[in-house]
Amino acid sequence: MEAAQRTISVLGSTGSIGTQTLDVLSRLGPPYQLRWITCNTRWQDLAAQVERFKPYGVAIRDADAYTAFKQATSFSGPILCGEEGLSQAAADPENDVVMSAMVGFSGVVPTMHAIRAGHQVGLANKETLVSAGQIMLPAVEQFGATLLAVDSEHSAILQCMVGERTADIDRFIITASGGPFRTTPAADLERVTAAQALKHPNWSMGAKITIDSATLMNKGFEVMEARWLFDLEPDRIDVIVHPQSIIHSMVEFIDGSVKAQMGVPTMLVPIQYALTFPHRAELDVPRMDLAALGQLTFEPADQDRFPCLRLAYEALREGGSAGCVLNAANEVAVQAFLERKILFTRIPTIIEETLSHMEHLSHPSLDAIVELDQESREFASTLTLRP
Amino acid sequence: MEAAQRTISVLGSTGSIGTQTLDVLSRLGPPYQLRWITCNTRWQDLAAQVERFKPYGVAIRDADAYTAFKQATSFSGPILCGEEGLSQAAADPENDVVMSAMVGFSGVVPTMHAIRAGHQVGLANKETLVSAGQIMLPAVEQFGATLLAVDSEHSAILQCMVGERTADIDRFIITASGGPFRTTPAADLERVTAAQALKHPNWSMGAKITIDSATLMNKGFEVMEARWLFDLEPDRIDVIVHPQSIIHSMVEFIDGSVKAQMGVPTMLVPIQYALTFPHRAELDVPRMDLAALGQLTFEPADQDRFPCLRLAYEALREGGSAGCVLNAANEVAVQAFLERKILFTRIPTIIEETLSHMEHLSHPSLDAIVELDQESREFASTLTLRP
Repeated sequence: MEAAQRTISVLGSTGSIGTQTLDVLSRLGPPYQLRWITCNTRWQDLAAQVERFKPYGVAIRDADAYTAFKQATSFSGPILCGEEGLSQAAADPENDVVMSAMVGFSGVVPTMHAIRAGHQVGLANKETLVSAGQIMLPAVEQFGATLLAVDSEHSAILQCMVGERTADIDRFIITASGGPFRTTPAADLERVTAAQALKHPNWSMGAKITIDSATLMNKGFEVMEARWLFDLEPDRIDVIVHPQSIIHSMVEFIDGSVKAQMGVPTMLVPIQYALTFPHRAELDVPRMDLAALGQLTFEPADQDRFPCLRLAYEALREGGSAGCVLNAANEVAVQAFLERKILFTRIPTIIEETLSHMEHLSHPSLDAIVELDQESREFASTLTLRP
Repeated sequence: MEAAQRTISVLGSTGSIGTQTLDVLSRLGPPYQLRWITCNTRWQDLAAQVERFKPYGVAIRDADAYTAFKQATSFSGPILCGEEGLSQAAADPENDVVMSAMVGFSGVVPTMHAIRAGHQVGLANKETLVSAGQIMLPAVEQFGATLLAVDSEHSAILQCMVGERTADIDRFIITASGGPFRTTPAADLERVTAAQALKHPNWSMGAKITIDSATLMNKGFEVMEARWLFDLEPDRIDVIVHPQSIIHSMVEFIDGSVKAQMGVPTMLVPIQYALTFPHRAELDVPRMDLAALGQLTFEPADQDRFPCLRLAYEALREGGSAGCVLNAANEVAVQAFLERKILFTRIPTIIEETLSHMEHLSHPSLDAIVELDQESREFASTLTLRP
């Protein structure tokens, strides 16, 4: 347990990671003080969280939801609105830790405000680094912020890295469950449904990230994220399929030694670790029992059946604005798949076509990224009109 | 690579760990200077090492071997004799790191001299802690020494511990290959031969330690060693059988997170790590390839078929002089088994009978330990007269 008080704000508190973060905070108890919670449209969930967790203030991105919240609740703290409101909550100098748990590209700007304020930022929003890693990391350095990934894979790498020198790293080995279609033949992937794709074998997550797990784009994002979080070249970041999701990722060092972080799959561990880092606190989660499991299995990741993984590596090698376009096209394609507008196998082709079509910027500014994100979405949307 | 020069002495340089240490040192190159090398009887091997590795001096425990070495070689550096000579080499103030790689109880006194001199001690000799852990650890603290285990299991724990707080540890999980008789039914263990026992599935080691692996006493010793190296209660140190020996051991933390250290089985990694600690250096060893391996398997350790493991836990819970008696009786019984004097299944019964017979000292001195070791050997020897 930490003796010193830590003030935490949770951006995207009504999502999957956000709600779990509030649970972890309430279990950690008094040294952890909740400052801001924020949402996009789910103002009723936010109102319930206000009742239960007593934050200092709230921010609501959607204007209608903001109005509805103000009318329906008697919350007496500050109530902010829009992206500006979220950014203001993120930048609040009272914050020690900002948990950035918004879904998709919408997390980029508020997260950047938390970084510019020099906070410790727990990043559950991988699109932020995928889209804007190249401009975000210099800001982390410039403003003395600390960026901690909250997904299980990067938390695993971070846990394996404490006490080690960056110079001693040889390679990251990121594990992938393989998703619900790990053993589905290539020919059958065209016919898989959104309902099938949403049945993830090991992790309970939001819809968008669950589809990204099914295409392995999620793993591609994690490779990109690892590249920026730990400043390691793409060719030194490998992906291996490990269906049990017990090993959450590994670091291989220059002496051939490999460190792995393991455990029963639960987001509670990486969430709490981002809050207690670099220390730990008691956490009541099921314990790993390898003798009962009997075995852990591994297989190569198949970039032919899952071209999203290949596209992510390609975008990372290309650098510049490619990550932003990849992410924007993916968000549009996944949404279209969830709405039954396109086939599962159209997701990678929409991304590839968007990447080919959009202008490539080697050193985009944040404004250029925001604009390119919008343009990429518009172009990708035109591609979703045929199944 | 280290920029600063490090001066290393290797006690037991002609043994399995000793020769590998010299190989690692020669590959690490100039910053690492070899000071003393020592042997018991193998003076000819020592003479060859003198030629190749150019140490400052040598120490030879056996008086006849000492005389033979002096007569046969023209080595111009200091040549010391007897346990006193080894202890003098161990205590040399020029040493930065002393690698304690002698076999069995003979390592205790020289290792203690290295500790009292405040050196960083790489401990490949597990009998030292098994016999004298309770008196050795306070000395480590008193004289500001650093004790690093060189076997793969404790090196794994050490690697998982860097950057972590001791207070955050919940449990150690030490892996065991299971040895050559992992799947041998209890009824067949009586008839196994020394030749069968010497065929270890994964590790190439000395004869004594290979038999200890076959009985799982080696694992029991490692539990005892972990208890003293990291000051964790016996009931928080588990053993799990993992036949592939890829995971070398694990640490479970209070938040349910587990860190494991992995790699292709080779002693070169823990040996080099003890020399370069807390950093790492390039090492040309085969790299782990989990996708090619396909699976890692795990099963509970069977204390009924392998009573030596149970006896080690019991001796550890009893504390005081029990570890010394356990170790002495085990050395005698293993030697008798290697000489075909007793059956494999007599090893644990000889140890158990010796433990029951010998006096128990709660807080023995080093002198009392040395004396009890001798008495335990004598008593255990009488038990080897029947098969």
